[in-house]
Amino acid sequence: MKNEIKNNMKNERENLIYGRNAVTEAIRGGLGAEKILIQQNIEGEGKKVFALAKKAGIPVQAVPRFVLDKETGGAAHQGVVAYTTEFAYAELLDLYDAARAAGEAPFLLALDGIEDPHNLGSILRSAEGAGVHGVVIPKHRAASVTAAVMKVSAGAAAHIKVARVPNLTAALADMKGHGVWIFGLEADGSPYREADYGGSGGLCLVIGSEGAGVSRLVREACDFLIAIPMHGQIGSLNAGSAAAVALFEIAARRGEGTA
Amino acid sequence: MKNEIKNNMKNERENLIYGRNAVTEAIRGGLGAEKILIQQNIEGEGKKVFALAKKAGIPVQAVPRFVLDKETGGAAHQGVVAYTTEFAYAELLDLYDAARAAGEAPFLLALDGIEDPHNLGSILRSAEGAGVHGVVIPKHRAASVTAAVMKVSAGAAAHIKVARVPNLTAALADMKGHGVWIFGLEADGSPYREADYGGSGGLCLVIGSEGAGVSRLVREACDFLIAIPMHGQIGSLNAGSAAAVALFEIAARRGEGTA
Repeated sequence: MKNEIKNNMKNERENLIYGRNAVTEAIRGGLGAEKILIQQNIEGEGKKVFALAKKAGIPVQAVPRFVLDKETGGAAHQGVVAYTTEFAYAELLDLYDAARAAGEAPFLLALDGIEDPHNLGSILRSAEGAGVHGVVIPKHRAASVTAAVMKVSAGAAAHIKVARVPNLTAALADMKGHGVWIFGLEADGSPYREADYGGSGGLCLVIGSEGAGVSRLVREACDFLIAIPMHGQIGSLNAGSAAAVALFEIAARRGEGTA
Repeated sequence: MKNEIKNNMKNERENLIYGRNAVTEAIRGGLGAEKILIQQNIEGEGKKVFALAKKAGIPVQAVPRFVLDKETGGAAHQGVVAYTTEFAYAELLDLYDAARAAGEAPFLLALDGIEDPHNLGSILRSAEGAGVHGVVIPKHRAASVTAAVMKVSAGAAAHIKVARVPNLTAALADMKGHGVWIFGLEADGSPYREADYGGSGGLCLVIGSEGAGVSRLVREACDFLIAIPMHGQIGSLNAGSAAAVALFEIAARRGEGTA
């Protein structure tokens, strides 16, 4: 199943995004688009996308439905298709700046080799919802922020800073130099609800890949290892679910000032 | 993207399951299988599946790799393919019995129209991991437990009771008659970390559909509405992430006896 999703991503144009919500959120989030195609004589929500795109200075073209069907390979485009410009990645320093601008200690997320675009999209959505200042992903052997990821993220990817680094271990070392504590989510860590999330200090949560978990070097770079206790027969959660559970625990604990 | 996944599901044989982990977990969880195909001369983990299947009394056939490639449409089968018998749904009463057998108050999950097999699989995995006694899904306009869902669930679906009911509102009324409190997850509910999860009483968490949330009648059947506060621009989490966050909060609070 995971592989089938990956194949779909490859067949799809990497910069094509469709559906009313995904396109609306992408425009609102400032994702650049070269062009937006809207179905001729579209009513209601579709019309709103038209107005929004014009306001953002993105060229809009009205086309017959069959053009949109063809462009999206018959997917549920809802009469709206956008050709985005490449995702604008942030630098690691921008992530610290985002925290400083918010007047908060850095709350970061590092993904150690998430390969499934569905997982990446859903994790970016959770991170944005949890108030994370920025996400770090590796350049190699990991999913990058494509239009498909943007769509799964419900547009959240356009609202959050994502830095793409050549070496995740080096990025974690850099964070430590900025007063950020590294928390790795690992099956044999200590219970995540009992951890001390460091109150006023910065924090980066590290999530491992779907299959292999956190890699050895990254694991060694962690200050703390935390785990979500499992009550059933299966040893772990889906990477997206695990990220959501840990992110919202940390967000709430930091918010309460009892972290 | 969601639609592309759905199309894959349709093209796929509904009862075909592949990959070492998915097949192993399915056998261990007691999912019936008519037949298992294993690649000729397979070594290591694949051999273990062979032994496990024989022990479970499932016919095993060794075939050349190209047969497996053809059967799975070229997916990553890892030399192991199983033809499962139809998923054996539980009755609502079985869910209360499972709780009783565990000596616990019922901890249930109701899904109000989850349509994406990827979300259903990941939610079943989270529910199993959170120690839920059983899951209720509607018969109509919702994803059912196919082999593809089983695979996404990493086999968790074989370890958890799933009841498929014609009318979700009636099922919730039945639960109330069994002393179960109904908690609906809704954008305008009260903060989920401040809710009283009722200590010794039974509890059912209701998750709405990906697009429309909890439907009106189901919402009216809820005793409490809870929400996960969002800290960003996007108004909600992916259904699978939301379910995971709420389930693990409830599991932990009930476990602490401070619910």
